[in-house]
Amino acid sequence: MTRRQLHLNAFLMTTGHHEASWRLPESDPYAHVDLAHYVRLARIAERGTFDSLFLADGPQLWSSVAQRPAGALEPITLLTALATATEHIGLIATASTSYNSPYNLARKFATLDHISGGRAGWNIVTTAGAEAARNFGLDAEPAHAERYARAAEFLDVALKLWDSWEDDAIVADKAAGVWGDDAKIHPPRHKGRYFSVEGALNVPRTPQGYPLLVQAGSSEDGKRFAARYAEAVFTAQQTLEDARAFYADLKSRTVAAGRDADHIKVLPGIVPVIGSTEAEARANERVLEDHIVHTHGVNHLERLLHLAPGTLELDGPLPSDLPPESAIEGAKSRYTLIVELARRERLTVRQLIGRLGGGRGHLTFAGTPEQVADTIELWFDSGAADGFNIMPAVLPSGLDAFVEHVVPILRTRGLLRTEYGGSRRTLRERYGLPRPANQHVLAPALV
Amino acid sequence: MTRRQLHLNAFLMTTGHHEASWRLPESDPYAHVDLAHYVRLARIAERGTFDSLFLADGPQLWSSVAQRPAGALEPITLLTALATATEHIGLIATASTSYNSPYNLARKFATLDHISGGRAGWNIVTTAGAEAARNFGLDAEPAHAERYARAAEFLDVALKLWDSWEDDAIVADKAAGVWGDDAKIHPPRHKGRYFSVEGALNVPRTPQGYPLLVQAGSSEDGKRFAARYAEAVFTAQQTLEDARAFYADLKSRTVAAGRDADHIKVLPGIVPVIGSTEAEARANERVLEDHIVHTHGVNHLERLLHLAPGTLELDGPLPSDLPPESAIEGAKSRYTLIVELARRERLTVRQLIGRLGGGRGHLTFAGTPEQVADTIELWFDSGAADGFNIMPAVLPSGLDAFVEHVVPILRTRGLLRTEYGGSRRTLRERYGLPRPANQHVLAPALV
Repeated sequence: MTRRQLHLNAFLMTTGHHEASWRLPESDPYAHVDLAHYVRLARIAERGTFDSLFLADGPQLWSSVAQRPAGALEPITLLTALATATEHIGLIATASTSYNSPYNLARKFATLDHISGGRAGWNIVTTAGAEAARNFGLDAEPAHAERYARAAEFLDVALKLWDSWEDDAIVADKAAGVWGDDAKIHPPRHKGRYFSVEGALNVPRTPQGYPLLVQAGSSEDGKRFAARYAEAVFTAQQTLEDARAFYADLKSRTVAAGRDADHIKVLPGIVPVIGSTEAEARANERVLEDHIVHTHGVNHLERLLHLAPGTLELDGPLPSDLPPESAIEGAKSRYTLIVELARRERLTVRQLIGRLGGGRGHLTFAGTPEQVADTIELWFDSGAADGFNIMPAVLPSGLDAFVEHVVPILRTRGLLRTEYGGSRRTLRERYGLPRPANQHVLAPALV
Repeated sequence: MTRRQLHLNAFLMTTGHHEASWRLPESDPYAHVDLAHYVRLARIAERGTFDSLFLADGPQLWSSVAQRPAGALEPITLLTALATATEHIGLIATASTSYNSPYNLARKFATLDHISGGRAGWNIVTTAGAEAARNFGLDAEPAHAERYARAAEFLDVALKLWDSWEDDAIVADKAAGVWGDDAKIHPPRHKGRYFSVEGALNVPRTPQGYPLLVQAGSSEDGKRFAARYAEAVFTAQQTLEDARAFYADLKSRTVAAGRDADHIKVLPGIVPVIGSTEAEARANERVLEDHIVHTHGVNHLERLLHLAPGTLELDGPLPSDLPPESAIEGAKSRYTLIVELARRERLTVRQLIGRLGGGRGHLTFAGTPEQVADTIELWFDSGAADGFNIMPAVLPSGLDAFVEHVVPILRTRGLLRTEYGGSRRTLRERYGLPRPANQHVLAPALV
């Protein structure tokens, strides 16, 4: 009998997920605008038969560029270039429902799905923070619940647009001079609270129907949204218990929303720091920690926790009077995770910055390839994960080490494919998900 | 002495610019979503040492898909894929100032410029038509003057964003742990009539500084806009006299706007239908005309002229009581060109549709390669053009024929480069234009 298969996503971030990674001798500080760097990473991930790779994003520049490489190429555009440099791997771009219009964004993802032969995915974000809001004509960020209400309507409109062409709308009858069948075009004619979108998309239905829908918010609003729309979920979990609880909760919410529990894949993030011995792995981790500039870390932490500059003391604990998550309008679940981590492990600000340097709240794990594989297998078999979001501390070397040393172990254990194979072509197929039916074709059968 | 050099742009449109091109045996009716089709076209144009290739665009699907291939991949996304398949040719994408936000669009073009190594160009359009407006929350299209006022502010914001990083803002001091110099980041802090954009772009300044700015509106508003911003202008001109007048007018407006007349390149469109003899060329043209479905053509013409469906008679003249251009809020100059063409040549609706089938108002020219080259040279030497927008009636064969048969003649006459050469890398360099200085670096020197 075939073992249940693990799903792996490579979360790519310039020189790596550790904030000090750019300072290592191997790192190129200009990598963030270098296509060749990303092509190299994509090809390493494809060698490791990953399901997909992924780019985070936000439409703003943080207040200081001193600390670490800042700014990034726009993900859909970059992934289109990577589509031409790869054959099999899925391509997941982050894009905001708060700062895009549905027509333009639906079209861009449809284009990426056509160009990549059905390998497009959309990590749906609502974008926390006033910096982004002020780049789009607003004075402050919209409230958290407001952002999610807009996101839900955005999705409904996008789904109408992606379904606005039936799969067989193109007739291509040269002799009769008839190219398309107007009866198989379904303009959304949407008038809602946030959007009015009248006409059909100007891109035919794509290989996947629409991009794989991915989501990463773990707040109450985020989980409700995921249960309704998401087909894959990225999540930051610090302990196996928390991860199991999150997994069970999300699966049951998905069933309650009328969907199949297996049609939402849960992928916790892990920052593997690999060494040939445990001591070497810890030494590698220490090199990274030693490169952290703590004044930068304090600034960053104060921003994450919505504290005024100068509030935190490097060798003191977090303040005891932090507001509850309900008072936070930004990244709610990340806020709670950081505060709980500091309190549970009684960390000073300096220690907390060290822990966050690698994963910004994701599980950081230093160990041998066997130990990394063991952790992955344990979580996978304990009802905590359908796969993992692999977040190398340093790129490309950390991804290369994972593919060279951890992937073979996962393959030996029967958890991961040894090659992509010919029959499964689209990203959705790789994740074991069905191609979505067109809402206009399904409807008559449901009557 | 070196002959003044001709600039060539390949205007790519699915199966060709003739509306019936998709019905020919050689044409693939699914070409509009096929990356391989566009890669093939780009490589043909690069073989012909064209300066650039270009994709038109509008964010809407026309009311019927029956007539001809409808919809198109989003141009910036598609050109990013073409950037990886080519080495030298410039990549010009159309994008609308009416239906985008400056931050997102400036970022996408910056991304394309980085990925292509400085080969990005932006054809700036304001997008006529209610169909597009209704896809973006509006009931009707904004007035013509209003669209251009927004376009001007859009450009000012985009230029601020592209200049928000000085070229040497990245310090990359690994030892000190300092990546960027915050003093060399200049947030726009723009508050205007249409846009408020606070923060710096999250992409460093690009190889070209910003994309080549291209424009194609020939109305009064359009020409004013071009004189102020455009570095290349695509234009539809039916006669040498009209083209010379347009050329002289635009150059003098550009000088009046305080710019160098040589820093705006004027490229009329030409639809060459090539045959080894004049008779063969005319026969090729007739094959295309014979494939026109006239009921489609009447519908299309009624839309272009803002007439109610059923107004036009196929074998009658245009109505004599058409409104003046000033009453048109859509594509003003195209309206006038079509009306004047019909009246000057006393064309019936059927004949007019035949004439427009190939070029939608652009100069259609059927002839031998020598005759095509003669026309190009005549216009080029008569103060009517700095180059041409080549619009093959059928693709890829029409572009292939131009490159195989006309390009060698232009090269023999010393009008066109024989190879790209190593030193000129960016699109702006190919067009003989300087790299723009950063407004924040120039300013002190001007004080």
